[in-house]
Amino acid sequence: MLKPSVLRELKSIVGPANCLASPEELLVYSYDATRQESLPGAVARPRTAREISEILRLANRERLPIVPRGAGTGMSGGSIPARDGIVLSLERMNDILEVDDENFIAVVEPGVITGDLQREVESRGLFYPPDPASRAFCTIGGNVAECAGGLRAVKYGVTKDYVLGLEVVLPTGEIVNTGGRTVKSVAGYDLTKLIVGSEGTLGVVTKIIVKLLPLPESVRTLAAYFNDVKSAAIASSDIMAAGIIPRALEFIDQAALRAVEGYLKEDLSRGAGAMLIVETDGPPDAATREADRSAGIMTRAGAVRVVRAGSDAERELLWKARQSISPALYALKPKKVNEDIVVPRSRIADILREIGDVAQRHGLLIVNFGHAGDGNIHTNIMIDDADLPRADAAVREIFTATLRLGGSITGEHGVGLTKAAYLPLETGPDAIAAMKRIKQALDPNNILNPGKIFLEQQCI
Amino acid sequence: MLKPSVLRELKSIVGPANCLASPEELLVYSYDATRQESLPGAVARPRTAREISEILRLANRERLPIVPRGAGTGMSGGSIPARDGIVLSLERMNDILEVDDENFIAVVEPGVITGDLQREVESRGLFYPPDPASRAFCTIGGNVAECAGGLRAVKYGVTKDYVLGLEVVLPTGEIVNTGGRTVKSVAGYDLTKLIVGSEGTLGVVTKIIVKLLPLPESVRTLAAYFNDVKSAAIASSDIMAAGIIPRALEFIDQAALRAVEGYLKEDLSRGAGAMLIVETDGPPDAATREADRSAGIMTRAGAVRVVRAGSDAERELLWKARQSISPALYALKPKKVNEDIVVPRSRIADILREIGDVAQRHGLLIVNFGHAGDGNIHTNIMIDDADLPRADAAVREIFTATLRLGGSITGEHGVGLTKAAYLPLETGPDAIAAMKRIKQALDPNNILNPGKIFLEQQCI
Repeated sequence: MLKPSVLRELKSIVGPANCLASPEELLVYSYDATRQESLPGAVARPRTAREISEILRLANRERLPIVPRGAGTGMSGGSIPARDGIVLSLERMNDILEVDDENFIAVVEPGVITGDLQREVESRGLFYPPDPASRAFCTIGGNVAECAGGLRAVKYGVTKDYVLGLEVVLPTGEIVNTGGRTVKSVAGYDLTKLIVGSEGTLGVVTKIIVKLLPLPESVRTLAAYFNDVKSAAIASSDIMAAGIIPRALEFIDQAALRAVEGYLKEDLSRGAGAMLIVETDGPPDAATREADRSAGIMTRAGAVRVVRAGSDAERELLWKARQSISPALYALKPKKVNEDIVVPRSRIADILREIGDVAQRHGLLIVNFGHAGDGNIHTNIMIDDADLPRADAAVREIFTATLRLGGSITGEHGVGLTKAAYLPLETGPDAIAAMKRIKQALDPNNILNPGKIFLEQQCI
Repeated sequence: MLKPSVLRELKSIVGPANCLASPEELLVYSYDATRQESLPGAVARPRTAREISEILRLANRERLPIVPRGAGTGMSGGSIPARDGIVLSLERMNDILEVDDENFIAVVEPGVITGDLQREVESRGLFYPPDPASRAFCTIGGNVAECAGGLRAVKYGVTKDYVLGLEVVLPTGEIVNTGGRTVKSVAGYDLTKLIVGSEGTLGVVTKIIVKLLPLPESVRTLAAYFNDVKSAAIASSDIMAAGIIPRALEFIDQAALRAVEGYLKEDLSRGAGAMLIVETDGPPDAATREADRSAGIMTRAGAVRVVRAGSDAERELLWKARQSISPALYALKPKKVNEDIVVPRSRIADILREIGDVAQRHGLLIVNFGHAGDGNIHTNIMIDDADLPRADAAVREIFTATLRLGGSITGEHGVGLTKAAYLPLETGPDAIAAMKRIKQALDPNNILNPGKIFLEQQCI
């Protein structure tokens, strides 16, 4: 519960209609795409950076935790409310302020839905490549907070690679502009790239300048089916080693394939043990040539069948299969523990074998799919509630194997709450101490998204 | 002068042969590519991160400024010694430790010459794109400190875009690893991208993991000559607006052309008023098609002549012209004030007009060339000593115009000493305060490269 005086002050900042405190309203903002949940004391829906600045100054005075929130689609609990703190929902700050088609730049507010921005710029022949799977619902502000990746990261990079500048409210309330409208600038420390991916702990982003590209002229989509996941992993590694950089290179293992085929009621794979989806883009000749070469490489690596999407409908069916995995998996078990490890590309077959061993050792069903092109694997431990302790043990073993193979425990979901206990496995104590000194320097009262990333910073 | 006890301790850390203190030796390390100069108290040439850690601990105890140094080719004074401090020369840490051609990664020490790394990876069919003009001499450690750009940044980005991970000695002596060997990772704050471009003020980089690309299959090079710089600027903007991303898109103004032609004793331009060099790469068909389209766009924008480099020798001549500008300019005047402003691409013609006005107002010769593709212009005020006060006034006016057009005062050279006084023009006081809080958090005694970037942090 917030003090009545604080609630009154909050209402005077954002207006009574944008300050929510009833139990039903709070419930709507109490969870995200993880299984975590926590009730805030109030939800504020500001419209301007100025209002956010006032809220942060209030929070510093009252030592109240503030948790910024986009659409709540995060996969690591980054927007889970601090108990009795204030959720700062950016949902009303949702304007596309500018699309500059001479300089390939867009300026947007954080509450803009990523898919809406993509459609808008594509209608002008431009391209915003980062494409988290949740792009139809997630906000670009959330993407910036988590440094979201997606399917096209293998060729085009992640959110951070497209953010040129920010307007951000620092934890202590100052409204600052970082970076700018040019693709190059080295004027002082790179606050932009420090804040992107800092999971809402170093500032509240209120305006985002993104870089755009020309929309690729053409796209070619292939699917290849393999008897086993090892051949698929080797094929994907071979494609990249041949110097081809597809715009997407996705793999789906047997359990995920079966789940999707049941869900879609389509027999895509004729009983195959693994699937790769390869998509190339660029000028038509080049895109076709890269697709042809990829098909040849996959056949040589043991693909039993390679299918080219000849029409938009065929292409959509292939991507529908990929995009249906998450909902389809719930037919297998009521809950999933969803991790997004990354390994160097050449180690994908190794990590999948190790994950198989972990699954067998603990008697767990583990389903794998993801971005083979950049080594980023979504590994899903499917469980009932009773399986949770074994799942936790399995997660630790998978992370340990990932790090042994030169990888990272999170490629695009962030640390948040769910991986805070594991961060020290990857990052040494001195590097974590340096990160915490930066947090302390910018947020001396630890009011902004406390308890995220670092275990020791408990919610107040 | 260093205390004799400190000099003894320094010798015991790096060995007597690698601790230099004679006036002749110190002189060699007293300057860089700017006109600045300052004598250090000693030069240490460590071989390991461990030795650097010991030196930094000594420096904290004794409150001694430490200035890391690569090859001293910097353009903003970032490696100018602090008076009576210690220069930390990374010249002996110059091994290419690993080239992983399965995962497109190289691991290098900071003292490796950038051009040597490029040759090594190209011999294996791989590509390290960042190409500062000084790549034959500069070190990758210096590139990392300054976030060096170069000619290919328009298509391939800058140094920061290729650094996946670092081993770095923090100012307080801890040796930490940031990032890693994968192209994606969001595990905690992005210390890697904070340290790249921090101009040696936040840590001493001792190992660098860089991302590589497949070497492009083919390259096409064109030169186009225009009657005036405005048509050239519009042509370059038109190329990008047509959705072509050349690997290089360079412009050279009339004064630079005349200087180069005199220097090379070649009449390249037949008296033209400006030149563009366009280079495309990729699969042969695509590279040719983009070169053809660029040629057409430049002709329509008023090019009086477009020349295709038909052989390697012709290509080399074109690039030799571009690369000879810096030495050639010294035939015009004994000194130059060299700035590297950036504007949004569509404003290049505007900023060149404004620079022309500034030159006229102050009676100065200002020569412009640079990276038209990303709006990064090298503007050189050619002077005698007597012109210096007018040059300083001109710089301030050029920076003011640049910022008014939505640009940045430095695209790739860094702030260092020479632009520290101007940083507040671009970056508001609250953002600078945030940067300084980060500096203070990581370097509480301000021993690492003090006096760079921020005016108020004077050398001790």
